[in-house]
Amino acid sequence: MHIDELDTPALWADLDVVERNISRMGEYCKEHNLALRPHIKTHKIPELAWRQIGSGAVGIACAKVTEAAVMAAAGLDDILLAYPLWGEHKWRNLLALTERAKVSVATDSARHAHATAVALGEDRKKISYLVEIDAGGRRTGLALDDSLSGHVARIAESGVPVRGIMLYPGHVRQVEDMDISELNAQIGQAKSAFEKAGVTVEIISGGSTPTAFYSHRIGGLTEIRPGTYIFNDLNYHSLGACTLADCALRVRCRVVSTSVADTAILDGGSKTFSDAAGLAGPGFGMIEQYPDALCEKMNEEHGYVRTGGCEQRPATGELVDVIPNHVCTTVNMHRVLYLARGGEVEEILPIAAAGKIH
Amino acid sequence: MHIDELDTPALWADLDVVERNISRMGEYCKEHNLALRPHIKTHKIPELAWRQIGSGAVGIACAKVTEAAVMAAAGLDDILLAYPLWGEHKWRNLLALTERAKVSVATDSARHAHATAVALGEDRKKISYLVEIDAGGRRTGLALDDSLSGHVARIAESGVPVRGIMLYPGHVRQVEDMDISELNAQIGQAKSAFEKAGVTVEIISGGSTPTAFYSHRIGGLTEIRPGTYIFNDLNYHSLGACTLADCALRVRCRVVSTSVADTAILDGGSKTFSDAAGLAGPGFGMIEQYPDALCEKMNEEHGYVRTGGCEQRPATGELVDVIPNHVCTTVNMHRVLYLARGGEVEEILPIAAAGKIH
Repeated sequence: MHIDELDTPALWADLDVVERNISRMGEYCKEHNLALRPHIKTHKIPELAWRQIGSGAVGIACAKVTEAAVMAAAGLDDILLAYPLWGEHKWRNLLALTERAKVSVATDSARHAHATAVALGEDRKKISYLVEIDAGGRRTGLALDDSLSGHVARIAESGVPVRGIMLYPGHVRQVEDMDISELNAQIGQAKSAFEKAGVTVEIISGGSTPTAFYSHRIGGLTEIRPGTYIFNDLNYHSLGACTLADCALRVRCRVVSTSVADTAILDGGSKTFSDAAGLAGPGFGMIEQYPDALCEKMNEEHGYVRTGGCEQRPATGELVDVIPNHVCTTVNMHRVLYLARGGEVEEILPIAAAGKIH
Repeated sequence: MHIDELDTPALWADLDVVERNISRMGEYCKEHNLALRPHIKTHKIPELAWRQIGSGAVGIACAKVTEAAVMAAAGLDDILLAYPLWGEHKWRNLLALTERAKVSVATDSARHAHATAVALGEDRKKISYLVEIDAGGRRTGLALDDSLSGHVARIAESGVPVRGIMLYPGHVRQVEDMDISELNAQIGQAKSAFEKAGVTVEIISGGSTPTAFYSHRIGGLTEIRPGTYIFNDLNYHSLGACTLADCALRVRCRVVSTSVADTAILDGGSKTFSDAAGLAGPGFGMIEQYPDALCEKMNEEHGYVRTGGCEQRPATGELVDVIPNHVCTTVNMHRVLYLARGGEVEEILPIAAAGKIH
């Protein structure tokens, strides 16, 4: 089947590029003796997680316990829940997950660590904790100040084994601006605080796609958790984290109207692409066949493309391929990914963990 | 079951407010002899479409043929596809839909009208067209100029019966600024062009939630297609189209971290709320219990709430209710809606047409 035969909008990826992206990250981590733990939020597909394991990954990271359940059901058996789960439903699901996988959980407060431990009761030793520190993103994570060792000690008192440190340098977007000496100092400070609390640091888990290939310069990292690298996207391209040729994912859309002057309307809007803003400027992506067209804005089902700047313009009924701003949120809107080589569909993969909100 | 017992994030609506919103629109349309055809993209739930029918609605509007199929399977039998569907998959689904419902389709070009007619072949008379005109939104729709009657005549030559005019004044956001005389002039001009083309105008379909209660002042409208009114949201509140008390929908989230100063992190991000921007300013919504908190930004699973401006602040583990910016895109991220009165869940409705992208 050729991709021209797919109903639109259709999510597809170039299999050559996907394979290259997977193997490049695997090789980098082997070369630098880093454990690779891909975040599966990008693809949400067990089959692709297995290919990452095949490239040397030691396990996976998930955000949601229901995403983790999908992965565990497919045999993925080493899972970090990189998120401070809270609630009876979630703790029950977490316990069920330990029947199938080795499970670690991020925590960033004694309150969370103890609530989870109380909920798990005698089973609390079936999980372990990574303690998150705030590397500057002001999202989650303990502050790197004098209070840190006290917090870590109280977390350890929960009775859940603490295995190490988690950080997410997701605020480091422009890799050339990354202050590696500051990150190194932060990690050094965190390690001292953990030692002072009497907690052995076995794992220091960091990484994100834009910073991934700099990880060997960050002292002490034992593991990285990049997600986006498997597909890459326009936002990471705009940050210099990948080339356009590294962008594997496309949303194939149909032009359904050109009745308004200098405009082509696509049959994909925010329900197809998500509303993810473009880091490099306005718009929802780039049309491969019409790179001078401006993917200006969206409603739920309509993508507004302004074609005034194009020499050639698409006709009503024509198929186009859009490279999206943010692949993770785009993939989440779809239920099937087509993998193609030279335009021929080789595989049809259900996006089994898409749309999981719990 | 109390809403406190739901796994988070949970989508719920106040049933009293939903019922009031439904009946108010139904009564307005009866009073002014307007056909009400609610756009079901807001709720995507057949059961709620039936309650709109119960308030006097003549049928429904859908954007996607797969959404329409869900509705038709539940017995909704008068459906406007307010979208220029294009493609063999879609035309086959359209034909299947005519077995269960009276179906009309929006078109805005002879090219689209004829392609659809050719695809349907002898069955083309099983559907009818509304011809969309561009009322100023620069999205879809034919221009109101001298070419209009020619376009309409060529659309009519497709052999699909043309029943009237469709317009979407969705660009009219600030209702007090709405230039009704201009809309009236546009409709008059369109009617003349249709007459010149020899096409009888039986239906003039307009409306959107912000303009809905002004529809009786727009000359010639026979039908309106508001969607959001059933729930309302923060964006329409900021436009003056509803009060906060009219906003029925909430996303119940849990605070999972307060480790970063002046910050509460919710277990709902762009996968829960969609990324819909706030028309009134930054942020992704308003927390009912902490209206002074700033729902600043989101990642996929994290909602960043800055609490520096709050006298009381939420604790880790606490439940909060967020009124979202845009209900339509928020509902689309969920699969179940809880309807509650006084905090007690009375109904659990599957959002059967959520996530339909075709």
